[in-house]
Amino acid sequence: MSRINLKEINTRAGKEIDKQETKDKLVKILVELDELQNLLFAENQHSILVVIQGMDASGKDGVIRNVFTSMNPQGVNVKSFKAPTPEELSHDFLWRIHAQAPAKRMIQIFNRSHYEDIIVTRVHKWCDDKTARQRMKAINEWEDIISKHNNTNILKFYLHVSYEEQQERLKERIKDPGKMWKYNANDFEEAKLWDVYMQMYEDCFENCNDIPWTIVPSDQNWYKEYIIASTLRDTLLGLNMQYPGLKK
Amino acid sequence: MSRINLKEINTRAGKEIDKQETKDKLVKILVELDELQNLLFAENQHSILVVIQGMDASGKDGVIRNVFTSMNPQGVNVKSFKAPTPEELSHDFLWRIHAQAPAKRMIQIFNRSHYEDIIVTRVHKWCDDKTARQRMKAINEWEDIISKHNNTNILKFYLHVSYEEQQERLKERIKDPGKMWKYNANDFEEAKLWDVYMQMYEDCFENCNDIPWTIVPSDQNWYKEYIIASTLRDTLLGLNMQYPGLKK
Repeated sequence: MSRINLKEINTRAGKEIDKQETKDKLVKILVELDELQNLLFAENQHSILVVIQGMDASGKDGVIRNVFTSMNPQGVNVKSFKAPTPEELSHDFLWRIHAQAPAKRMIQIFNRSHYEDIIVTRVHKWCDDKTARQRMKAINEWEDIISKHNNTNILKFYLHVSYEEQQERLKERIKDPGKMWKYNANDFEEAKLWDVYMQMYEDCFENCNDIPWTIVPSDQNWYKEYIIASTLRDTLLGLNMQYPGLKK
Repeated sequence: MSRINLKEINTRAGKEIDKQETKDKLVKILVELDELQNLLFAENQHSILVVIQGMDASGKDGVIRNVFTSMNPQGVNVKSFKAPTPEELSHDFLWRIHAQAPAKRMIQIFNRSHYEDIIVTRVHKWCDDKTARQRMKAINEWEDIISKHNNTNILKFYLHVSYEEQQERLKERIKDPGKMWKYNANDFEEAKLWDVYMQMYEDCFENCNDIPWTIVPSDQNWYKEYIIASTLRDTLLGLNMQYPGLKK
């Protein structure tokens, strides 16, 4: 992938896209997803890894709640990666990640992921450029391994919000009693590093794109949910799955 | 709990219960559950363990799909216990179970559970009566530990189907292409041991009831789903949870 400039990519749906029409389409896709996930589980041949990255308040939790809730929780698993524990730090950075790779028949969602090891770590200079390059190579290799050796389809989504939209959502967390639990004073501090974050994401998209990223315009929840749900639907349809016959 | 006789317990809803009315109630409960689960996650003080047991084709998978799909998969996790691996067998029977106990804020569902270690094992005489008694004591103790030490509410459901209904559902798996993947010829063999299974379940309910079992009439899916959803709703309401205020 050639270098992209996030500033040039819209964080909103194009003007030609109708909100209500898109929402109606989403409702139908969610019904399809329920059936396709059941088929994935029954066939037991493939697995899906959904990687969700994005700035604070870009809507990672919301998209998980609104898109993946349509499916049987028995076949869907969410792993939220936090700051590594001392035990995790005593291993290579992909050790804890590999342990969470999806088993066949499962949809595994990464809420944040191994990409934090080349994003937040670089922004704060906990990881130098040389190490970052090595990690990018390792990420491409690791994604190749799980794709090839366990029929895992990896879908990588970057939730692209504008700085203005992020600030608005962070402020909402201070006012709305139902959202206060998400508030972290440090988020405003992190936001000051916005431009460095964007630069590190651009570098990531350039170098870790063997399995391609989808940049999702994310200022509007309805559009973001539609893009992710329809990408997942198309991927599942592309597997040409069939219900297995009777075991002999 | 005094000895119960499963034959005396109805596997269907009482005649006074209206199907459509119950289904309408269920739809409303699922909306409530979505909100309550979000609150459980936000408050981060309690956790829920839902244990689902029942004979083959009693509808364990279906109830998970239809009741728990209404909630954010980020806060809901399903663990299906299969025959133990050699590594698991080299530990006490609760070792692999404890590792799957819910973290605070989570709803963990056990599709089959530690109760198999005093049911299927006894039916096949892999476990003698003395060992079974010791295991029952251990189960009560273990359930006490996770209830008291991590604010875990344990809900135990036995999906009570009639032999006739089970046979019908097993035969359906041979005919319906969407269900063939669930077919296992051995299920019909197991079904021949029906009476022994019932006896072992009755023994279990008598001895492992410190945290009480709910016997769920399960011949009709709509009624089973309603009972489980409403029990979960009442339990969550009983926690008197509140959204946390702003962290200082």
